[in-house]
Amino acid sequence: MKVYRSYEDLPKIRLPLGQEVFISDSTIRDGSQMPGIVMKKKHKIQIYEYLHKIGIEKLETFVYNERDREAVREMLDRGYEFPEVTGWARANPKDIDFVLGMDGIKETGILMSVSDSHVIDKMGLTGRDEAERKYTDALQYAVDHGLRTRAHIEDMTRADNEGFVFPLVEKLLEIDPDCTIRLCDTLGYGLPFPDVDEPYGIPYIVRRLKNTGARNIETHIHDDFGMSIACSIAGYWYGANWSSLTFLGVGERAGNAELEKVAVFLIQRVEGFQKYNLQSVTEFAGFMEKEIGIRVPRNKSVVGKNIFAHESGIHTAGIIKNPFTYEPYPPELVGGKRQLLIGDSSGLEVIRFKVEETLNELMNIAIKVDKSDLRIKAIQAEIQKLYNQEKRVSSISDEELKKYVEKYFMLQPIIDEHSADEINQLENDKGENNPG
Amino acid sequence: MKVYRSYEDLPKIRLPLGQEVFISDSTIRDGSQMPGIVMKKKHKIQIYEYLHKIGIEKLETFVYNERDREAVREMLDRGYEFPEVTGWARANPKDIDFVLGMDGIKETGILMSVSDSHVIDKMGLTGRDEAERKYTDALQYAVDHGLRTRAHIEDMTRADNEGFVFPLVEKLLEIDPDCTIRLCDTLGYGLPFPDVDEPYGIPYIVRRLKNTGARNIETHIHDDFGMSIACSIAGYWYGANWSSLTFLGVGERAGNAELEKVAVFLIQRVEGFQKYNLQSVTEFAGFMEKEIGIRVPRNKSVVGKNIFAHESGIHTAGIIKNPFTYEPYPPELVGGKRQLLIGDSSGLEVIRFKVEETLNELMNIAIKVDKSDLRIKAIQAEIQKLYNQEKRVSSISDEELKKYVEKYFMLQPIIDEHSADEINQLENDKGENNPG
Repeated sequence: MKVYRSYEDLPKIRLPLGQEVFISDSTIRDGSQMPGIVMKKKHKIQIYEYLHKIGIEKLETFVYNERDREAVREMLDRGYEFPEVTGWARANPKDIDFVLGMDGIKETGILMSVSDSHVIDKMGLTGRDEAERKYTDALQYAVDHGLRTRAHIEDMTRADNEGFVFPLVEKLLEIDPDCTIRLCDTLGYGLPFPDVDEPYGIPYIVRRLKNTGARNIETHIHDDFGMSIACSIAGYWYGANWSSLTFLGVGERAGNAELEKVAVFLIQRVEGFQKYNLQSVTEFAGFMEKEIGIRVPRNKSVVGKNIFAHESGIHTAGIIKNPFTYEPYPPELVGGKRQLLIGDSSGLEVIRFKVEETLNELMNIAIKVDKSDLRIKAIQAEIQKLYNQEKRVSSISDEELKKYVEKYFMLQPIIDEHSADEINQLENDKGENNPG
Repeated sequence: MKVYRSYEDLPKIRLPLGQEVFISDSTIRDGSQMPGIVMKKKHKIQIYEYLHKIGIEKLETFVYNERDREAVREMLDRGYEFPEVTGWARANPKDIDFVLGMDGIKETGILMSVSDSHVIDKMGLTGRDEAERKYTDALQYAVDHGLRTRAHIEDMTRADNEGFVFPLVEKLLEIDPDCTIRLCDTLGYGLPFPDVDEPYGIPYIVRRLKNTGARNIETHIHDDFGMSIACSIAGYWYGANWSSLTFLGVGERAGNAELEKVAVFLIQRVEGFQKYNLQSVTEFAGFMEKEIGIRVPRNKSVVGKNIFAHESGIHTAGIIKNPFTYEPYPPELVGGKRQLLIGDSSGLEVIRFKVEETLNELMNIAIKVDKSDLRIKAIQAEIQKLYNQEKRVSSISDEELKKYVEKYFMLQPIIDEHSADEINQLENDKGENNPG
């Protein structure tokens, strides 16, 4: 009999192939391309600091303008071992020269678009042959000048992989066997299921790249169809050792797979995985919201304000008894805080609990209150009345609750018969029916 | 040779088992439990209207209070065939009586928590046997009173499925062979990979439920680990015929799988799937934001403001040539609109394009401008200067661009030598290096 009543009880997952896995950040590169967002130099440096705190292994940045180059110099000046600062270039010597111009950068990504739409429509090339020459030449140039390389195989999930991409990758690996092959799911068309063929099947593509001899495989997945996290994890699951991610998923259009989601998955669920520290991610999200203007919806996994907030009857009743019932992991893991709220879907138990808390705070002694106490029901009835009139659209604040507690428990400690009738009336109308 | 240069070229997907699939909405049930959110009666009715427009087959609602019951009556009064309005109850006769009290509701969900933590810690039951009696009794009661049923198997991904849940499901199906078995991934622990055992493997559980004889299987996946969409699609992929979703993913904590993401996946990618109309979802998202206060981040798939907005050099250059290069599907599909923006990551091409547009608008004749025109470079240099000074953090508005166009193309049509030098100076500093 399997019994899971605490996080320790839950079975851990093993990545089937057991390889070591890493995260490569693109927050200040793909993230800064997000329409409407401008990251200043100081923002990029602060992001670098947060990534360092988490323990992320690598990041990539543009070095086209002096602002970006100054940011890079400041990052390198901090002397941290991680994240390694790497460059980004289009497939031409001029771009690679920009990277080479930066002392301290030893690796660059090189953009290699492979879908016919990108090769012909976007780049205006005559076709695949010209693209292949351009890409292999650029890689050769980078290698000749001593850079470690990543081939950013753009729009791979809408390309002719068997007909063009895998043969191209073979040639790239002949030039640099250690080249990291980045599988860019540029429009989010990737699927995480192993029985899906190319161009969509992330497991298929990863396995095929492994068979082609790639030692380093990295996914870079966009979220247009909402599957960026699953496809990033699918990458690891079927053999990739890197995942290119952005904090909060910032990036072009629907953005990228979120760094914090993949990291919390690895930390919380994968056996023996301990190398990231996520205690600063809630603060990091606050920084992105306040300083860069990225809206963090309250129901965003890991860092949203609601992740450890509970209001509905059944959920608050569960949480009060054992937080494991309705929390995916302890709030401390991500620097979050549990919150119990009273709102229109709350039941008696959370009111009882918060009344008890308030009383203890007001009188500084431990008091136990029963859920069937008429005064609790009276408070619930008053609160439900607010919502029934449909004038109230927010939760009940702690200040407001204090007033109810004073009214029923301190100023008017006994409920007379008339009030009791009224409470029962309200109850029948709506009160205690809320689950919980 | 496979060539994909338009949406029509891209291969469609077939769900491997070919079953018909449906969506069951929980926006006004799980969604309204979202902490901090209060949905008024009029909101619930408006949501019902939007779901009707999309063509969603079913929704569920609480009927515990008069507000909710009034909302249900209004929905039913509209006389629509879809969405069917169904109820929700805890596993006891009193709750089911509430549903039975509503004329016109013919189906109810019944909450059946199955993890030991929920059974013992939350519900305070003595153990699995008592839970099983409670659940089978409640189901029997609902069936005896003529309701169609759904068994909401709560927290199934942290439960002992082989030891407790699958045998329970067998008993439920003995009572009601048509009972919809809802696989609730309550804390988002589900994984979409077919080689994962219970309790986490969604494909495993779905296949196992099918083998147990379930005719109707529905997933209900929470997003705590960011895999709700992939697991919902995995449900369909491996044999479920229903998916319980909420619009924008509103719901407890990180919320639920998003209805709009699953729907767009089905419409855009699955062969022959045509039954939903998504043209109102952008407006629907605006309603949720304005009326209910749900923040929609600009990079949210399908409905975020950035989904068809393009700013960076490479992307805008691609979009201008062929939108297929960097859009997952045409904006019209979801009632969205393409937007080209000029910001700090923009290149020359988007400026050229927008200058051309502005000139055409100002002078009302078609004018072609070349990317190498010095005046275009001069405008880019001026814009880059704004960002280099780090005082500017938003995109360049159309009004601002108009001023630049007037300055360089209308008031000062010729650039003198001195300006040309200045432009080249700025270019070297930052200007044209932006990709694109």
